[in-house]
Amino acid sequence: MKEFKNDRLFSEQEQALLEEILTSRRDVRGNRFLPKPLEKETIDRIIRAGLSAPSVGFSQPWEFVVIQDVHVKTAIKASFEEENQKGAAEFKDQKQQAYQQLKLEGIEEAPLNIAVFYTPKNEPVLGQTSMPDMGRFSVVCAIQNMWLMARSLNVGLGWVSILDPNKVKKVLKAPENHELIGYLCLGYTDLFYSKPELEIKKWDTKKELEEVVIYNQYS
Amino acid sequence: MKEFKNDRLFSEQEQALLEEILTSRRDVRGNRFLPKPLEKETIDRIIRAGLSAPSVGFSQPWEFVVIQDVHVKTAIKASFEEENQKGAAEFKDQKQQAYQQLKLEGIEEAPLNIAVFYTPKNEPVLGQTSMPDMGRFSVVCAIQNMWLMARSLNVGLGWVSILDPNKVKKVLKAPENHELIGYLCLGYTDLFYSKPELEIKKWDTKKELEEVVIYNQYS
Repeated sequence: MKEFKNDRLFSEQEQALLEEILTSRRDVRGNRFLPKPLEKETIDRIIRAGLSAPSVGFSQPWEFVVIQDVHVKTAIKASFEEENQKGAAEFKDQKQQAYQQLKLEGIEEAPLNIAVFYTPKNEPVLGQTSMPDMGRFSVVCAIQNMWLMARSLNVGLGWVSILDPNKVKKVLKAPENHELIGYLCLGYTDLFYSKPELEIKKWDTKKELEEVVIYNQYS
Repeated sequence: MKEFKNDRLFSEQEQALLEEILTSRRDVRGNRFLPKPLEKETIDRIIRAGLSAPSVGFSQPWEFVVIQDVHVKTAIKASFEEENQKGAAEFKDQKQQAYQQLKLEGIEEAPLNIAVFYTPKNEPVLGQTSMPDMGRFSVVCAIQNMWLMARSLNVGLGWVSILDPNKVKKVLKAPENHELIGYLCLGYTDLFYSKPELEIKKWDTKKELEEVVIYNQYS
């Protein structure tokens, strides 16, 4: 096994650069995307970042639908409109007003959409026998890798979750057993915000380390 | 809003460095951890990387239990032993033999464990009204950020999923509504492998881009 050694040690400067990419990553919506198409090389590089994500039992249970077709986007957008209306109705008073003023997706504005599916196996998966969600979680790790790679390439990415996963599957003619995990909008942007948009707009406040760390056991 | 602009553009060299961190990240198990404790500063830096992850509706639905207590680890390890026996039984013949030869965790060998919980809210969450798993997925994004930060700090991290989440909750005295998403083992290592261990050991083969990308719609 020792012949498969990777002895790369990262430097302080490299560690700081990773932190800068992590903290510069934003959820990008339709008011910031530029129409300029993404080069195939850029798209492939973002998806390859996903392929180097960890996956439970090395199952790599993912598929990526790369969407540029306007008719497909329009059909997906219709599901967003429906779900967004239902979503807004769950909030009350001022929070509902604030919700309705937010731009929450960029399906049509972004030159590229990527639907990311979980493809369950018909046999047991190592590491997934006690926690059945692990395959879904592997797909999420792939999406987070893609998000960071996109940001480093100065490409914006927004994750749209206000969708009916079954309607999206139908539009994309996805196989019965596939599950939609994330629907992503990608494109160059006119700017990245320095903080999460919902923090800037005071929807909620940023949690500090001390608020979310517990030592050894809850008391 | 334009005053909240981040105009940092990353260079080709910086993009390549991110790719190197992404592809150098490994799942590290007990046969590779060194007993050397992690500095508090290092632990905080890894958790802070998690805090800069995206979260649905800026809900930041996460808590991190930092575990160094040997008794807690021993109790968690007991759940692993139980679940691992059940897990192995799901595989047949040669696959079962191969399974039993794998070292799949480092709970006791790693100087540090971190249990990462999803803390659901009692009110609607923006972006989670149509896809209820989004809060759990946000916590997974935090874990992936931590994993990458750890690797850049030359710290190994292994995600142990062969555990009964309810037993882990009980050991940690976690509140009723908390859900265990990931149980992580962290420490310095004697080496990182150049490829996933399950790839080296031919448990499965690496999927290529062409196998997992579909254009516009499934046919």
